[in-house]
Amino acid sequence: MSTLFLRTLREDPADAEVPSHRLLVRAGYIRRVAPGGYTWLPLGRLVLDRVTQVVREEMLAIGAQEVLLPALLPREPYETTGRWTEYGDEVFTLHDRRGADYLLGPTHEEMFALLVRDTLTSYRDFPVSLFQVQTKFRDEARPRAGLLRGREFLMKDSYSFDLDETGLRAAYGRHRDAYQRIFDRLGIDYTIVAAISGAMGGSASEEFLAPTPAGEDTFVGCTACDYAANTEAVTTPAPPAGDVHAQPSAQVYDTPDTPTIDALVELANDRQLGDRTDWTGSDILKNVVVAVRRPGLDEPELLVVGVPGDREVDLKRLAASLSPATVSMFDWTGTDGSGLVRGYIGPQLLAKLGIRYLVDPRVAPGTAWLTGANEPGRHATGVVCGRDFNPDGTIEAAEVRAGDPCPACRPGALTIRRGVEIGHVFQLGRRYTDAFRVDVLDRDGKPARLTMGSYGIGVSRAVAVIAEQHHDGQGLVWPAAVAPCDVHLIAAGKGPQTEAALELASQLVDLGLRVLVDDRAHVSAGVKFTDAELIGIPRAVVVGRRWTEGYVELRDRATGDRAELSVPDLVARLTG
Amino acid sequence: MSTLFLRTLREDPADAEVPSHRLLVRAGYIRRVAPGGYTWLPLGRLVLDRVTQVVREEMLAIGAQEVLLPALLPREPYETTGRWTEYGDEVFTLHDRRGADYLLGPTHEEMFALLVRDTLTSYRDFPVSLFQVQTKFRDEARPRAGLLRGREFLMKDSYSFDLDETGLRAAYGRHRDAYQRIFDRLGIDYTIVAAISGAMGGSASEEFLAPTPAGEDTFVGCTACDYAANTEAVTTPAPPAGDVHAQPSAQVYDTPDTPTIDALVELANDRQLGDRTDWTGSDILKNVVVAVRRPGLDEPELLVVGVPGDREVDLKRLAASLSPATVSMFDWTGTDGSGLVRGYIGPQLLAKLGIRYLVDPRVAPGTAWLTGANEPGRHATGVVCGRDFNPDGTIEAAEVRAGDPCPACRPGALTIRRGVEIGHVFQLGRRYTDAFRVDVLDRDGKPARLTMGSYGIGVSRAVAVIAEQHHDGQGLVWPAAVAPCDVHLIAAGKGPQTEAALELASQLVDLGLRVLVDDRAHVSAGVKFTDAELIGIPRAVVVGRRWTEGYVELRDRATGDRAELSVPDLVARLTG
Repeated sequence: MSTLFLRTLREDPADAEVPSHRLLVRAGYIRRVAPGGYTWLPLGRLVLDRVTQVVREEMLAIGAQEVLLPALLPREPYETTGRWTEYGDEVFTLHDRRGADYLLGPTHEEMFALLVRDTLTSYRDFPVSLFQVQTKFRDEARPRAGLLRGREFLMKDSYSFDLDETGLRAAYGRHRDAYQRIFDRLGIDYTIVAAISGAMGGSASEEFLAPTPAGEDTFVGCTACDYAANTEAVTTPAPPAGDVHAQPSAQVYDTPDTPTIDALVELANDRQLGDRTDWTGSDILKNVVVAVRRPGLDEPELLVVGVPGDREVDLKRLAASLSPATVSMFDWTGTDGSGLVRGYIGPQLLAKLGIRYLVDPRVAPGTAWLTGANEPGRHATGVVCGRDFNPDGTIEAAEVRAGDPCPACRPGALTIRRGVEIGHVFQLGRRYTDAFRVDVLDRDGKPARLTMGSYGIGVSRAVAVIAEQHHDGQGLVWPAAVAPCDVHLIAAGKGPQTEAALELASQLVDLGLRVLVDDRAHVSAGVKFTDAELIGIPRAVVVGRRWTEGYVELRDRATGDRAELSVPDLVARLTG
Repeated sequence: MSTLFLRTLREDPADAEVPSHRLLVRAGYIRRVAPGGYTWLPLGRLVLDRVTQVVREEMLAIGAQEVLLPALLPREPYETTGRWTEYGDEVFTLHDRRGADYLLGPTHEEMFALLVRDTLTSYRDFPVSLFQVQTKFRDEARPRAGLLRGREFLMKDSYSFDLDETGLRAAYGRHRDAYQRIFDRLGIDYTIVAAISGAMGGSASEEFLAPTPAGEDTFVGCTACDYAANTEAVTTPAPPAGDVHAQPSAQVYDTPDTPTIDALVELANDRQLGDRTDWTGSDILKNVVVAVRRPGLDEPELLVVGVPGDREVDLKRLAASLSPATVSMFDWTGTDGSGLVRGYIGPQLLAKLGIRYLVDPRVAPGTAWLTGANEPGRHATGVVCGRDFNPDGTIEAAEVRAGDPCPACRPGALTIRRGVEIGHVFQLGRRYTDAFRVDVLDRDGKPARLTMGSYGIGVSRAVAVIAEQHHDGQGLVWPAAVAPCDVHLIAAGKGPQTEAALELASQLVDLGLRVLVDDRAHVSAGVKFTDAELIGIPRAVVVGRRWTEGYVELRDRATGDRAELSVPDLVARLTG
């Protein structure tokens, strides 16, 4: 500690919102350099290294082979798959001195597909899985929470290549198992949730989420079964279809000044529309206009999304449903809305206007709704799905709420938690191998198109998640598997303790332990204790007053347990 | 080998100019992805890892502490030191989605100075040395020779911080010693040469150059003493100053059609100018016009450089002498040359024209020259330096030639060799600490400005240099310290050899050896031998016909020695 490049801070950094960020900065593990860009200081780099090593060991254990690709990648392959455009602002692009376009690879599906295409030729070469541990770059809109969402971060990404679906599923399973072992070893509490595909394209996909209040992702569980899913992946059970003809015909009412759901509910009950006084938001069909931009098309398309009036549209769910197209709320400024009457839109007119209409699964055939009448200040009751309007399909766009029915069981209800994505496993299928025609010769000498999986772990993010899940009021509490050192040896006292501590340290190092010694001469024992708790090495050994009698104190950072031990007993305890 | 991600090539890749590039690609260590961008395949990554580990161990051994900074760096600090502009096209720049400017750090002096400024406060914290092993990016004009000059490469850069020059010199010495140990361990033949500063600013500086015909750097040695220098750093011994008044006055002659040195020499001898018939190029003072651009100034400055007529101006030496300004040949197109008469420029007029004039040290006071008379078709003899013209200073701009006198000894003569820069040690001094006011409190409580050194090793380039220096006609010949494996076990034969080889392999692995087993079923023994020689692991063990009698063959890749051994003898040899 007298020479370690370290300065602990007593105060929280002003920009730190979450515990891991606060504590990693205060304890001298990381330091901010730019928005979303951090320096790993010596202690931090040790932790990063240990986490990387665990990931590497488990990847090698499933037969994946380590390579390292450039981060600076040419435009063309990403152009071929359409991701040059799909990524949009998320990716850093640049050009070289000759004007050629490059990107800083956020993931490497294209490059690995090309690598395998140019290297392997026969079915005998499969299965094959490749991985790399590499610095990745993403131009996050809102870099935040320290390492939890950075713009430059360390990632382990792997890619499996197989001849058929059976092979892909097996590779997926091996990665999924390895990921469980990795996160178990790292001491990370996690949930595996069903995920959807996002910009990657493909089919089966799961995320490893670490539950923490600092998380940006919400995910749902079930009160009754083991269903778990990313909020974007939650499906809404549809009610059974009703008889569309058994219902009274639609009725139009004057409903002045009711551009909002609340105002409409109040008026509907006041005026007893349809002879009812029990109207609630869930009886109303709310129609939201959005603009959808498809990759490669210049003009956005208008889309109307119908959801029950008591629910907001969840833009993340909506975006995930429409991906790879991107979506934004329709901007009414200076437009006539193509025939739509703002605040009074009903689905009855949309087909005639040629506007695509997608509805929440709860808007099932035979359900009747109070909705806009497509005239200012007018609404209609008894507007029946399948009779008065025919949606172009359903869409998962409505917000998910705790208590919603579980899509996997009855009578389960959904619970909602926050988490951080630490891993992602993904059966990509043939999106990339089709794009680059990645074929090998099969057993019969015919070309076989490979199928691909991709798998990622946020290595630097995992460090933050461990800190997020392992700390207390005094500081970090590292699990032994990732702690920067095994023992924090504290020389407490102005006498012979420093020399004794250094001697004891070299004894422990000889036994294979990694030891940090606080040998600082001008620092009080109290400050040393405070720093040790902040730094969070699992075990502290205090060489203090009773050293002269041959005793030291062993402190357990996690439990707070303390024991006075003779040096032989200490050694036995530490190596036992 | 039956599962290794590897495909060896029998043919040289078309774009490979140098042996390391050719062989690393053919043996499946690396693969080109973009100009100057390479993938490290599994075998290559192992070598890269071993080289990195040697570098890391020696840096830790001198007490340097490992950190890791971002590669994506904000513009401001580089703006402060002027390097944002100085680097010019060499650096990749980009902006984020908000339009903020970033660069991909080619070196990190600025960031380390800021890191130390914000972390350390007292003289007690010094000396300190920090290092990182990091992917660097440079927009090379001509990426070439595979890993020898890439645009994305792995580098170890370290930075020392000290309170005074004595400390800086000690840190420099520690790094210099560590670098010698590193390159010795890596099996790299190298020469330490005096270097000049380039864009980094500062004073003492040496380069570690690996002599190889593939090198882009030329450097000089001496036939008599141990002087060695980068060509840019070679100084020209000046002749003793002569008496400027003891010489006949200048004489102007008509010299039509003599815009070149050769034409002028011929005419001078034909016409016996100055009553001489022994004129040579070295009697002529050649004046070359260049345009110099200083950082921060829009308009280039005209500069005339005077060199003996038998020497070309070496643009690299000229550029190094003028750095951080950049220089190009003056473009005569559409200009009157500010009074200069192209092909007939003499120094007599330059002061009057207000044009700066710098001369080669051989143009010493009292030397007399045949040079331009500043009129078309006219030259003058007996133009004496210090009498007829007064240069504004001397400059090292003339080409260096084998046989030139050594600046360090007499009668030594210079030799010229080609090499690759693999390391650079540099006493920066206070350029960066001044720019950021990096002060700490000294023993007396007063602020002391730190002084800084920077030290770099091209880690990925070192891999290429090792290959460049260790190969033969059959392939690579790795030194044991960096080979991807210790033993290449070859199952030769269709019988029980494969199983035997795999069994022997696991026996050797248990003994701590790293083993590559060629267990491929559909590949002939001949192809396996060829691949083994190409891949270049130090020792091959052939499990062949005599296996059933308990014998294997041990082959030494470097010497070609072969020995038939029993397995116990083999084990003894391999572990001895």
